[in-house]
Amino acid sequence: MSDVVIANRSRAAAYMERHGLAALIATTPENVAYTIGSQLRATNWTMQIYAVMPKNPEQRPCIIIPTNRLGVIAQMGISGADLYVYSDFFVEGSIAGKPSTPDIDLFYDLLQTTPSYATPFAALEAALTQLGIKGQPVGVDEMRMAPDIYSKLTELLPSGGAFPAYALFRQIRGVKTEAEIALLKKAAALNEQAESELIAMIAAGVHEADIAQHYRLAAVKGKAVPAMTAVGAGPRSALPLIENYFHTIAPGDLVRFDLCLQLGGYWADTGRTAVLGEPTEWQRNHFHYVKTGWERALDMIRPGVKASEVFEAALTTVQKEGIPHYRRQHVGHAIGLELYDGITLSPGDHSVLEKGMVLCVEVPYYELGAGGFQIEDTVVVTEDGFEFITHMERRLYQQ
Amino acid sequence: MSDVVIANRSRAAAYMERHGLAALIATTPENVAYTIGSQLRATNWTMQIYAVMPKNPEQRPCIIIPTNRLGVIAQMGISGADLYVYSDFFVEGSIAGKPSTPDIDLFYDLLQTTPSYATPFAALEAALTQLGIKGQPVGVDEMRMAPDIYSKLTELLPSGGAFPAYALFRQIRGVKTEAEIALLKKAAALNEQAESELIAMIAAGVHEADIAQHYRLAAVKGKAVPAMTAVGAGPRSALPLIENYFHTIAPGDLVRFDLCLQLGGYWADTGRTAVLGEPTEWQRNHFHYVKTGWERALDMIRPGVKASEVFEAALTTVQKEGIPHYRRQHVGHAIGLELYDGITLSPGDHSVLEKGMVLCVEVPYYELGAGGFQIEDTVVVTEDGFEFITHMERRLYQQ
Repeated sequence: MSDVVIANRSRAAAYMERHGLAALIATTPENVAYTIGSQLRATNWTMQIYAVMPKNPEQRPCIIIPTNRLGVIAQMGISGADLYVYSDFFVEGSIAGKPSTPDIDLFYDLLQTTPSYATPFAALEAALTQLGIKGQPVGVDEMRMAPDIYSKLTELLPSGGAFPAYALFRQIRGVKTEAEIALLKKAAALNEQAESELIAMIAAGVHEADIAQHYRLAAVKGKAVPAMTAVGAGPRSALPLIENYFHTIAPGDLVRFDLCLQLGGYWADTGRTAVLGEPTEWQRNHFHYVKTGWERALDMIRPGVKASEVFEAALTTVQKEGIPHYRRQHVGHAIGLELYDGITLSPGDHSVLEKGMVLCVEVPYYELGAGGFQIEDTVVVTEDGFEFITHMERRLYQQ
Repeated sequence: MSDVVIANRSRAAAYMERHGLAALIATTPENVAYTIGSQLRATNWTMQIYAVMPKNPEQRPCIIIPTNRLGVIAQMGISGADLYVYSDFFVEGSIAGKPSTPDIDLFYDLLQTTPSYATPFAALEAALTQLGIKGQPVGVDEMRMAPDIYSKLTELLPSGGAFPAYALFRQIRGVKTEAEIALLKKAAALNEQAESELIAMIAAGVHEADIAQHYRLAAVKGKAVPAMTAVGAGPRSALPLIENYFHTIAPGDLVRFDLCLQLGGYWADTGRTAVLGEPTEWQRNHFHYVKTGWERALDMIRPGVKASEVFEAALTTVQKEGIPHYRRQHVGHAIGLELYDGITLSPGDHSVLEKGMVLCVEVPYYELGAGGFQIEDTVVVTEDGFEFITHMERRLYQQ
């Protein structure tokens, strides 16, 4: 993600204008990554890493980090933001005429030139001052700022305190930029490659755990971070979340996959269902019901439609098609820097779909004692509908 | 970690007694894991997962989770805590006489019997009521509770609000239980195995990136989560934190490793230094200075000594031994459920060492343009000194 412009600064400016804010302060890793276009990791909960996104899209964002992160900034090639550091960190030496690499040259330069403060709060205050907005109303991503610093910040702000901005960041992030869509496509492609390998592994005598482990290794080989690895076979195909593995695949088993990884900060989340051997009529029928609901959800997706309307259409379709008792809490969710990235296609979410939103659409059915079915794909909302980001065939795979 | 008793409940009770608290509410994944003996992951920042640790060690802890996590609870074999769930989640079917597995049986049972609430706050309130401590003072791990819920919780509590308990949890966790030490040893052993493989890979023409990737795969093969993978060769051995790789190893290069992974929730963090070929006098000497400081730090470690005293002794030793300008912000840190798990061996930390504390001891030297040196080991404080948790030879490795 180095120095790619990720954030939709004009969309952010419009939201800040609407709420009367001069800037947004990102505190969670995802909102920091969005603001600066690169991921920065904290070592523990006390370590504070912030990014400030000014309303004016012409102003550069600011990064507030511990001094020791300057080397990481240099290695990642982050150059689109102004830096403010806090806390001591000692590195000796000089590099003139000595063995170096471009990241060391830059690190050395940053160590000499970056303004340094005693505390994260002082560094943040300096950033706001430098941006010319100290004392003006700001939004603060409230989820990952230490509460004592949050209180202190409140004293800098007009009465009423900070505007809690985690949800606002997610609204801004809701419509993806071209750079983000490119990253989501990369993550999805890696995930689908791995998922195809997993389907090919299905055979009698293979343990769920071996398939799950193959997924994790495939993700790491592809430079991604594997997360939820739902590989459920036989009776365990009916389990929605799977974090442990107990079943050895036998002929006739359904195998349900729901696989998540993060690549370059962006998530992929794709699901498929397979069967070892010939599916039973019940399996074939229920896959068909789920697929029909999933197709109905996709039919609905276009700008102007409410998330809850997509839900309603998919739900009633599955009920009419063949599962009258079908219930579901959602039939999909936004995906991006977070796995659940904001809106959900659910009865209570009346958000209106916009062009550029990226959604995972899934209409799974879980029946304990019988089996589970999943098709989950990722789509981007276009001017008059949607475009697939995932491309694997949507069928009941047979091995 | 399933159902191993991890927490030191009597130590926790003593700290709660001292602060007049009836319970502690864990909100960060680490403090939740400590309280219940198992890790539970949240999907995003809005998802709230809490664990309540009552002061009375005879009372079971409580877990507050979204309903969909019940399957994970069943799969992990978590049975030492009472469950309170919130939010809708639909799974159909019955299991009587149908294909199942023990985790499905348990999941089904939990779905029928677990008290369910509309919101995480209502579930938390029910847990406090059930424990008979609603309205009594409690400590709240303030780092990972959504601020709106934190405010609401304050209304339940005596005036003065919640006692911020993140630091208190870390103090309690500071002295590890036998079960925790066993887990830290497992993590360290895996990390050392990987580090040995990495040292063996050092050869002319090998890229840092290939060594780093080998580490990540070795961690995943060992069921661990790889984190900071500092593999810096040649000039890049002088970089403290390494998150990107640019150098191909050449004869004479120092290669500095600082490797972190998490296994079963517990961290390992080990460092070694190697050289390709014969070390120069400068390399040999500087490794010796660092090693002498590191040995001095270890000499100091025993119950009753202050963290800052260990720091001072190591620092002055390195300065006298051969690097008069030697500076350092710390010479080690507690390790456990967090990589930086509480105290640091630093000038400002006057915590007194206690038996059962687990510390990483490191006295690195970074000189840009010249090279970097690291020995980092993990030790547990014993009655009259310490015992190593890491076992690799502490020498300047030669390949």
